[in-house]
Amino acid sequence: MKLTRTPNRPFLFLTVLLLLALVAVLAVACQNQAEQNAQPEIAGATEDINAIAEARGLTPADIAAAVKTYTPSGMHDEYYEFASGGQSGQVYVIGLPSMRILKQIAVFTPEPWQGFGYGERGTLAVLAQGGETVYGEPLTWADTHHPALSETDGDYDGDFLFINDKANARVAVIDLRDFEVKQIVKNPITLSDHGGTFVTPDTDYIVEGGQYAMPLGFGYSSIENYEADYRGMITFWKFDRAAGRIDVAQSFAIELPPYWQDLCDSGKGPSEGWIFCNSLNTEMATGGVELGNPPFESGASQRDMDYLHVFDLEKAKAVYAAGNFDLINEFPVISLETATAEGLLHFVPEPKSPHGVDVTPDGEFMVVAGKLDPHVTIFSFDKLQAAIAAGTSETDTFGVPVLDFDAVMEAQVELGLGPLHTQFDDKGYAYTSLFLDSAVARWSLGGSADELNEDPPWTLVTKTPVQYNIGHLSTAEGDTVNPDGKYLVAMNKWAVDRFLPVGPLLPQNFQLLDISGTGTDMPVIYDMALPDGEPHYAQIIKADKIEAWEVYPEVGWDPHTQAVNPDAPLQGEERIEREGNEVHVYMTAIRSHFTPERVEIKKGDHVVWHITNVERALDATHGFTIPSYNIHVSIEPGETVSFEFDALDDGVFSYYCTEFCSALHLEMMGYMLVSPEE
Amino acid sequence: MKLTRTPNRPFLFLTVLLLLALVAVLAVACQNQAEQNAQPEIAGATEDINAIAEARGLTPADIAAAVKTYTPSGMHDEYYEFASGGQSGQVYVIGLPSMRILKQIAVFTPEPWQGFGYGERGTLAVLAQGGETVYGEPLTWADTHHPALSETDGDYDGDFLFINDKANARVAVIDLRDFEVKQIVKNPITLSDHGGTFVTPDTDYIVEGGQYAMPLGFGYSSIENYEADYRGMITFWKFDRAAGRIDVAQSFAIELPPYWQDLCDSGKGPSEGWIFCNSLNTEMATGGVELGNPPFESGASQRDMDYLHVFDLEKAKAVYAAGNFDLINEFPVISLETATAEGLLHFVPEPKSPHGVDVTPDGEFMVVAGKLDPHVTIFSFDKLQAAIAAGTSETDTFGVPVLDFDAVMEAQVELGLGPLHTQFDDKGYAYTSLFLDSAVARWSLGGSADELNEDPPWTLVTKTPVQYNIGHLSTAEGDTVNPDGKYLVAMNKWAVDRFLPVGPLLPQNFQLLDISGTGTDMPVIYDMALPDGEPHYAQIIKADKIEAWEVYPEVGWDPHTQAVNPDAPLQGEERIEREGNEVHVYMTAIRSHFTPERVEIKKGDHVVWHITNVERALDATHGFTIPSYNIHVSIEPGETVSFEFDALDDGVFSYYCTEFCSALHLEMMGYMLVSPEE
Repeated sequence: MKLTRTPNRPFLFLTVLLLLALVAVLAVACQNQAEQNAQPEIAGATEDINAIAEARGLTPADIAAAVKTYTPSGMHDEYYEFASGGQSGQVYVIGLPSMRILKQIAVFTPEPWQGFGYGERGTLAVLAQGGETVYGEPLTWADTHHPALSETDGDYDGDFLFINDKANARVAVIDLRDFEVKQIVKNPITLSDHGGTFVTPDTDYIVEGGQYAMPLGFGYSSIENYEADYRGMITFWKFDRAAGRIDVAQSFAIELPPYWQDLCDSGKGPSEGWIFCNSLNTEMATGGVELGNPPFESGASQRDMDYLHVFDLEKAKAVYAAGNFDLINEFPVISLETATAEGLLHFVPEPKSPHGVDVTPDGEFMVVAGKLDPHVTIFSFDKLQAAIAAGTSETDTFGVPVLDFDAVMEAQVELGLGPLHTQFDDKGYAYTSLFLDSAVARWSLGGSADELNEDPPWTLVTKTPVQYNIGHLSTAEGDTVNPDGKYLVAMNKWAVDRFLPVGPLLPQNFQLLDISGTGTDMPVIYDMALPDGEPHYAQIIKADKIEAWEVYPEVGWDPHTQAVNPDAPLQGEERIEREGNEVHVYMTAIRSHFTPERVEIKKGDHVVWHITNVERALDATHGFTIPSYNIHVSIEPGETVSFEFDALDDGVFSYYCTEFCSALHLEMMGYMLVSPEE
Repeated sequence: MKLTRTPNRPFLFLTVLLLLALVAVLAVACQNQAEQNAQPEIAGATEDINAIAEARGLTPADIAAAVKTYTPSGMHDEYYEFASGGQSGQVYVIGLPSMRILKQIAVFTPEPWQGFGYGERGTLAVLAQGGETVYGEPLTWADTHHPALSETDGDYDGDFLFINDKANARVAVIDLRDFEVKQIVKNPITLSDHGGTFVTPDTDYIVEGGQYAMPLGFGYSSIENYEADYRGMITFWKFDRAAGRIDVAQSFAIELPPYWQDLCDSGKGPSEGWIFCNSLNTEMATGGVELGNPPFESGASQRDMDYLHVFDLEKAKAVYAAGNFDLINEFPVISLETATAEGLLHFVPEPKSPHGVDVTPDGEFMVVAGKLDPHVTIFSFDKLQAAIAAGTSETDTFGVPVLDFDAVMEAQVELGLGPLHTQFDDKGYAYTSLFLDSAVARWSLGGSADELNEDPPWTLVTKTPVQYNIGHLSTAEGDTVNPDGKYLVAMNKWAVDRFLPVGPLLPQNFQLLDISGTGTDMPVIYDMALPDGEPHYAQIIKADKIEAWEVYPEVGWDPHTQAVNPDAPLQGEERIEREGNEVHVYMTAIRSHFTPERVEIKKGDHVVWHITNVERALDATHGFTIPSYNIHVSIEPGETVSFEFDALDDGVFSYYCTEFCSALHLEMMGYMLVSPEE
């Protein structure tokens, strides 16, 4: 404002007064605002959150992570993560995003709290299904690797969970109504698996791929005869959903070259009906470092390419249905020769001792993680089909047709050192673990997925370091046709310095990453210890897809038939019946007593004991044990359990409720009185 | 400022300009301040924490709790919590305040990941120490209840952990240098314990109190002879700290009336040398609800008072040293008659079927939680001494002197329904669990502790609800002469709706409470699920008191002798030796191969196999298994393991490293080739 002449005094005076007023108002308002804002804008906060964070050494990023993962009392997690328990032989159930372990499902290893394999007859029967040691005793542990949730139309349906045992080649079926294992099948032709479990999009088949080659059927042959006599395999277990069991009689295998098959995946959408597996020792190295030979780690890593195994499952089913197989240990096995002749098996070169093959959500591509090659290699299903149709004259030494790499390869993306495994989100990104780089790489897909984000296709977007040395990773519903994105779990193999020392055997470290952002936004938000066993792989399912029972549906329930047991003792039916030396005890459990409270038997009796928990309230579980018998059962509301034993010792044995059920829990006991023989 | 005359124009003009400038400055400063303060005062924050919290439904109290417990990658927890694993038979190691499970120590139950009881000879020997079933097989599970950390001068020293087995009456010793169990002892006179383990202030003795009465020595007697023939007991296990083992030959027990002894505690400070145990069935009820008798829960709850057992351990040691005992199963047992005659046992009435007796940090008082009585009853050690010195003519039916309740009672505080267990902090407060009220009560101590806070002595201060139905609780170092305060863990028995459904068998729920405040400030800040087994009690120790090894001290280490094994194979010493049908394999493991990679034996051989992990790096563990043998071992850096088996089956068996150790982990394998008999 150009002043042409000085304004008059009254005007100036008024202006001064107004400005003074304005200054006063501003000062007061500013002060109020400063007071209000001096605390974090968290209405009603009674504690200074910044002070707490500062005292504990938390950064702003840490506070954000805390608020993204903390799940207060009464609030439930958003997702279940089912992770293999590794050498514990069990399955972990973990809540996301809190990363709290909610259950360790007993699958292959006897576990007393759950009453699995400690006398209860149904559980002993399941364990017995899993095969025997050379001593004729049940196998009682496993090296569980890859859980697979049952799928319908390529989406998790929340009904069943399957898991493999690498150490003895077995597959287990878990019922997600009560989170208990119902069946174990033992592979009848080999002792080693790895590429399992994986399911077809409607869970018609559960795939179990082998790992270390050996003579199929368990015979002996010198290692000098490796190429002639040692073989790999893939087994297709038929799943009968109505029965909730694998139908062994409808299952079959295919003989494969001794190439150490590794991980598998099922096609989906356009690629449904096809199965893909990596391999890692097409060199057919046989080790013997003590003899001056190259060790396996070197001998199995010579070639730049191994073979992606491509199975036409529809053709294989037809070949099986036509009876065109051999029997090995009475199990149908399509010979390698037949597989080749029938055109149901093809090889595609893949670099280099790779670890994962993962089919994209749209089913258009198969992503191979290079392990000793720093790329992910993406094969196109369309190009694969074209190459198969066009035919090839190239074969491996076993006559299996080998397709041309460039003809099938769609793209390669250089990610870093040690790519192992890939999963997907809902925004057209893929996530690959980098073991040696100790990082997770986010990269963009091509094909139909290209339009889901702004990044160019087949391009590395960002890498987030993880601690340390990641194996597999898991994204929310990332195995399915419809991933959720949001969360990624890095399943690290080395914890090193992450946790308080617990001696020379350290836990593993899962890290939760927030993948809801794009670009470089992909922070680690939670470190979680795995306290028992080494998980290898996991699947993450939205919480509302699981419909677990709160209590068993009716009193007298047998969880092994998932029906009422007509002989189950109900209230008023408690009794002890004797037939010669066989005694049957029919007992009920309710807060806070067992009925009967005295069981009088004789030394030498054979005792069969049944207990029904007649409660109907959520969480009203009772436990039961008799000392000196290795008997422990867990009896959930409505459940009936049965166990049996020989009363070999006279004496007084106090049985009691082991699950703290009530104020008078300690008083919930009874005496088994075994009188001496007359 | 009284205006006598209007100021002149130039003055006014300048004032206007100055005021305009001031307004401008204020406005800008206020705006900056507002921008700065619009986010929580977290410098450098790139995410809006309030928005995240709001989207997830977190209240300001939740955010405070998150920030109090979240422990970011690389930051360690402040405390270790050792909790019993209940019916899992193991021990949990949990980090506070993050509430993450860091390890599940295998103690009584074979656990394959840790290689406990799956072939490794040292672990099988430990399990065998624990006694047998009636079938002559090792006991392979336990109901673990109360861990006890070793103490020096009444403070945790971080060297050892002890734990009991209620189901079969055993005690285990865990070495906290490598977090592995080294010894199990089986109680030779009874099958049921509960009041263990508790230690004397220098860990001279480990206390194991009994629970369900039975004829001592395992004989038979009809329940009609309960009062005559059934007995309780307390066992004092002598601990040899230098050897790190219980010295069974220096241990002894005392015969007690059949009163179902419950929990125990050791005196400290002025009360050192005294042991206190509750009891809960002085009615000597024997149940038989099926016969129309009152059930145990009713029969054992008739009397208003049961008996606090007071042991003069110094007198008991003298009686033992003088040889004044009977032998039951070759174990020294001071008879009830002798105990009474020698004045080493007194009873004090205590209400009513109580659950816990806990000695205050200053050793002046013993706090009894009433269970069926809504009070805690505080006994004075001074008054107890005076009452003992004064003598009494009153006895129970077994002749044990019964002191006068009012003469020994210092105070009673009414807390609520179902008081079970009390622990302490550093501010003169006691914390008692209320099972039926489902709450934790904070109340103020008297005596020397009165001056530590402003509350009047023996007064209830506040109660915090917990979810749901709390059993024991644990405070940081709360069992010792010098508690830390800060944290309390409520060990709830019913989880109900706290977590995602996992079927009818629910996890337990630990809740972390912040007890660093005073008065009513005692919030729940974390809900944690226990995924396997039901913990009963825990102890919390400052992290810096644990000095766990990172790796074993030297290569060739035997964790059972905690010394180098002179026969351990080192690098360059790998070999296979045959003597007739016995084959010894000497193997080493290093990233990423075993040496040898081929083991050729004959069907019928007996094989003894030794493997040394020659690594020295933290976390460089290798695992090892042979299929079909239930053999799994975990070999930590420096460790040597040994296992043996009979090669009953010919064939080809692929052994491999089970612990993901390197990029070439899958290639770390070998073949055991068992040729058929000639």
